[in-house]
Amino acid sequence: MNSFGSIFRVTIWGESHGECVGVSIDGVPAGIALSVEDFAEDLARRASGRRGTTPRREPDQPQIVSGVYEGRTTGAPLTVLFENTNTRSGDYSNLVRQPRPSHADRVAQCKFAGANDPRGGGHFSGRLTLGLVAAGVVAKRVLGGDVAFATRIAEIGGCTDESHFDEVIDAAMRDCDSVGGVVECRVEGAGVGLGEPFFDSIESKIAHLLFSVPAVKGVEFGAGFEVARRRGSENNDLIINAEGATATNNDGGVNGGITNGNPIVVRAAVKPTPSISRPQMTYDFERGEVAELQIKGRHDACIALRAAVVVEAAVAIALADLWLCNRSRH
Amino acid sequence: MNSFGSIFRVTIWGESHGECVGVSIDGVPAGIALSVEDFAEDLARRASGRRGTTPRREPDQPQIVSGVYEGRTTGAPLTVLFENTNTRSGDYSNLVRQPRPSHADRVAQCKFAGANDPRGGGHFSGRLTLGLVAAGVVAKRVLGGDVAFATRIAEIGGCTDESHFDEVIDAAMRDCDSVGGVVECRVEGAGVGLGEPFFDSIESKIAHLLFSVPAVKGVEFGAGFEVARRRGSENNDLIINAEGATATNNDGGVNGGITNGNPIVVRAAVKPTPSISRPQMTYDFERGEVAELQIKGRHDACIALRAAVVVEAAVAIALADLWLCNRSRH
Amino acid sequence: MNSFGSIFRVTIWGESHGECVGVSIDGVPAGIALSVEDFAEDLARRASGRRGTTPRREPDQPQIVSGVYEGRTTGAPLTVLFENTNTRSGDYSNLVRQPRPSHADRVAQCKFAGANDPRGGGHFSGRLTLGLVAAGVVAKRVLGGDVAFATRIAEIGGCTDESHFDEVIDAAMRDCDSVGGVVECRVEGAGVGLGEPFFDSIESKIAHLLFSVPAVKGVEFGAGFEVARRRGSENNDLIINAEGATATNNDGGVNGGITNGNPIVVRAAVKPTPSISRPQMTYDFERGEVAELQIKGRHDACIALRAAVVVEAAVAIALADLWLCNRSRH
Amino acid sequence: MNSFGSIFRVTIWGESHGECVGVSIDGVPAGIALSVEDFAEDLARRASGRRGTTPRREPDQPQIVSGVYEGRTTGAPLTVLFENTNTRSGDYSNLVRQPRPSHADRVAQCKFAGANDPRGGGHFSGRLTLGLVAAGVVAKRVLGGDVAFATRIAEIGGCTDESHFDEVIDAAMRDCDSVGGVVECRVEGAGVGLGEPFFDSIESKIAHLLFSVPAVKGVEFGAGFEVARRRGSENNDLIINAEGATATNNDGGVNGGITNGNPIVVRAAVKPTPSISRPQMTYDFERGEVAELQIKGRHDACIALRAAVVVEAAVAIALADLWLCNRSRH
Repeated sequence: MNSFGSIFRVTIWGESHGECVGVSIDGVPAGIALSVEDFAEDLARRASGRRGTTPRREPDQPQIVSGVYEGRTTGAPLTVLFENTNTRSGDYSNLVRQPRPSHADRVAQCKFAGANDPRGGGHFSGRLTLGLVAAGVVAKRVLGGDVAFATRIAEIGGCTDESHFDEVIDAAMRDCDSVGGVVECRVEGAGVGLGEPFFDSIESKIAHLLFSVPAVKGVEFGAGFEVARRRGSENNDLIINAEGATATNNDGGVNGGITNGNPIVVRAAVKPTPSISRPQMTYDFERGEVAELQIKGRHDACIALRAAVVVEAAVAIALADLWLCNRSRH
Repeated sequence: MNSFGSIFRVTIWGESHGECVGVSIDGVPAGIALSVEDFAEDLARRASGRRGTTPRREPDQPQIVSGVYEGRTTGAPLTVLFENTNTRSGDYSNLVRQPRPSHADRVAQCKFAGANDPRGGGHFSGRLTLGLVAAGVVAKRVLGGDVAFATRIAEIGGCTDESHFDEVIDAAMRDCDSVGGVVECRVEGAGVGLGEPFFDSIESKIAHLLFSVPAVKGVEFGAGFEVARRRGSENNDLIINAEGATATNNDGGVNGGITNGNPIVVRAAVKPTPSISRPQMTYDFERGEVAELQIKGRHDACIALRAAVVVEAAVAIALADLWLCNRSRH
Repeated sequence: MNSFGSIFRVTIWGESHGECVGVSIDGVPAGIALSVEDFAEDLARRASGRRGTTPRREPDQPQIVSGVYEGRTTGAPLTVLFENTNTRSGDYSNLVRQPRPSHADRVAQCKFAGANDPRGGGHFSGRLTLGLVAAGVVAKRVLGGDVAFATRIAEIGGCTDESHFDEVIDAAMRDCDSVGGVVECRVEGAGVGLGEPFFDSIESKIAHLLFSVPAVKGVEFGAGFEVARRRGSENNDLIINAEGATATNNDGGVNGGITNGNPIVVRAAVKPTPSISRPQMTYDFERGEVAELQIKGRHDACIALRAAVVVEAAVAIALADLWLCNRSRH
Repeated sequence: MNSFGSIFRVTIWGESHGECVGVSIDGVPAGIALSVEDFAEDLARRASGRRGTTPRREPDQPQIVSGVYEGRTTGAPLTVLFENTNTRSGDYSNLVRQPRPSHADRVAQCKFAGANDPRGGGHFSGRLTLGLVAAGVVAKRVLGGDVAFATRIAEIGGCTDESHFDEVIDAAMRDCDSVGGVVECRVEGAGVGLGEPFFDSIESKIAHLLFSVPAVKGVEFGAGFEVARRRGSENNDLIINAEGATATNNDGGVNGGITNGNPIVVRAAVKPTPSISRPQMTYDFERGEVAELQIKGRHDACIALRAAVVVEAAVAIALADLWLCNRSRH
């Protein structure tokens, strides 16, 4: 469904080429200072325009249409709209005829019996993450200034040296291709005790949100998949002081699904944008055979770049929900 | 919270050394043949006794106390209890004084202000997964015989060759140590269209459940983290026929969060059991300094072995919920 | 929270004098024909303008901003916005100083620590029911043409003879007063089997929604409170044929929380509008004493008139949710 | 579904003649003193044995099987089981052949395609309310000693004079009949601010639970249905002091769905037990015609007597959930 969260509940809607996309956030505590300007920084991080991102530029101007009064949250649902201004009419019948490989075109059509909005991916478009980013901004306000987020691109196309990322992307672009990456988000100051057994572990909630983000195919915490190659004696995080600080952080700040006070470390694997301008041989449902597909337009060569702030927003939303939930218990 | 699912809703409870652990499953369609014998196979897969698993053996005899009448599900909640028969009284004050590294001991104590049941991990014990396995059995019945699950250990301690797994485990045991692994679950026959945009993607639901399972630190679908090292032209799954079959399956059977008819492939990284009998230097909260901890008793050297059926159960539960949800739409 | 429903899930937001009020409806099956014109009739039933209703008139023009493509629902969230065009700026400090009796002014202020939007009742305004009415229209489409709703005013100011309703209202208006009423909604054709034990009885879901509607203070089904005056032999609905039709309908079409195929009959008691222009002696928090309050402006003399379609919408929403839920079981 | 509540979440299961009925309560704050003895008083209020109640007596001994350790709640799910000891095997095919009028027999059979457990009403039995009563006890502990509940029978068979209740019941029993009643619950000390706009008004949550209780056909707050006979000037509750106390309490302590600090007053109409020993003429599905039905066994002549504590429990559960929810906001 299009809502997530128990107390801090985020509801999103919209299609890529519809009137607008939006988000309504329920459960925001009253009295938090907030204005449209507060969304600017994170929206800019999500925006295209940098190397490796699509040239489609939209102002992405947020409109707060409910839940803020005289510069403060009211306690009622906080709703933010983004108009879709850069939508060009076009012929989308080709998506039905020859669905783009590794895109949602075909499953959307099957699931909704052909009634889905196919334009620009419709409701499956990455444009829907605008609402997530907006909700992430509010979530970070709810958590307060003591909780610090640091998000970075940890890997692009197999390269983990940030100084060579541009080269990797440029090479992919020269080949009319795209390239995948890994986003890492690190959170300090969230404290001990966030997460609810059994099913609402902090890892569960964060992963749930992250796997809603288009293109994410893997999520790991702390040492992540590396734990499968380790002994317990290597992997255990030994506690070193009365605050519970650990000598290592292989658990990524989480034990038994509950934050342990050490930094929360989460990584998301983002696949290469499936929309590439290189010709691809994929099934043509009209012709009834495999045929060449050439995707028009210009696309993100490395969507991981723009996904970073979305990953951060997802983490923030999950934390805010569990933080409010935990507060109800004391 | 201790419930999961929108329609097929699983609620679990219990502590490792309490009276019993249990599960109540809501939303089970009426009229499905089911008896206690049907749980035997999966419970046996979860049970200890094999090389690398703990010698603590419990009969794990399921009792169906509601929801089945004359051998068929009634449509009312189906509840299964497992008595805890092998609980030895003991002194658990040491867990408070010197919490086991990378265990939930300390976070449980902090979160619940010292009122948690510390015996054997209490509610954070892996014993709670008995309920998940039982629910998984029911979920597979709901999905029906056309949906086939194949679950295997893909990796242990960095070794991916199954024929050497025993050696890797034996080596760890000789060193009084434990070792991690990767479980892979592959599902065929789930069909096209399972998963609900935006937040209830099939990956989100599966990952949510998997990250509730103790020791899971990473989840990936299809090519998973490998996508970060790839170009789009390598990673895209080209459609090859009218049924939507793809030449490769890097997407793990999922596009836009919706099943595409190809096999669903998910992997979970399971960390090495943190309970090892090797001495560890970790904080002693009573003495106020780091001190040696020697964990008594015998433990699983490779919990991934027993986790395999739990991973399968989690996947089955998520699928059953989304399958029922999808059915409501048509 | 501002969402309701398990499968057909309605989320509303907005304030009386904010930018807009809106509703996003999740879980709408794809392929249902729908246009803005389809909302006109029910919105007109809710609109003011008739005798006994406020002269504040707003066009209440619905804008479908997501979820409909080429005249059909897409399966993605269906969002409808209503701009607030007739909001006059004013001084609302008086609501803080001297909250209107039997209004939400004071509780809103207490609950949200003074950060609530007080203008026109803010989020507590009856204007929020626009979203409910819109969702009701969609719900009725989901249920289809075989399910027939008949909603009427059963009582106004103690008078149950419809031919005298105008007189009762006129008398109240002459006295600068308001008057309460009872709305009755009757549904035929919903079939047997809607409602989910234990907590999601059809009565529970309908009542939950109805008691969200401002001014509703009582809800009853079938014979309702009259059952307390009866013997079982009088009250029992004897089954008369193989379809399960009953000779009487004291149960209002519901047994054990499940529809039995007979007409669903529900009544809601709507209190007299608390905003009356007669002077009232109520506490002045600034002066620290009881003082006369004269509420300015013109208000609904009988809000029950406009509430009728809202009650119908609430019943339709609950039914649609349970209908989809029931469909998932078969 | 068989769960209710956002934070304080109650899940129930069981059938009248199954192994046991039970309840698992999630979200209970840790550290609350609780033992099986604490359930005795409310269970006794629910038990049969008094005049007008069924002679079927069961010890109804609660077993706490999880969530309590060393006499205090642990923060993990608190589960209470009640064995069904007094279940006599019998022939229930008659319920299928000639369903009892105004009972759930037929709808259960239709909804679950004949797979339901028909014995003693199965999952639709009033015996399921044992779990509610147990949860109510815990809910009252969560709310603490400052919140006081007073619950009484306000009316039986049209008689509102408590001193004549026994006569009314005796008369019905002499006629092999049953009689309905009204239960009133009054809560003081709940404070200002409980209830969540828009859909989780305190009235919505309470009514949702009350309409889950078998035999409840009407719910009203404060003046309830009487408001429909009133003018605003009569019905408005004028505030008389700085604490928000009102001169009257027609709103039953609730404005805009939020508690206003005055006593919460709720009434539930409970229908006469449909199981009466007088012969009834109702449809025989085997014979294909209306035929006499004589219900055997002895039944409650006035179930309202035993329902009183169930109503109180429902109110307490809704309050506890909203109280914890409200706490998360501050």
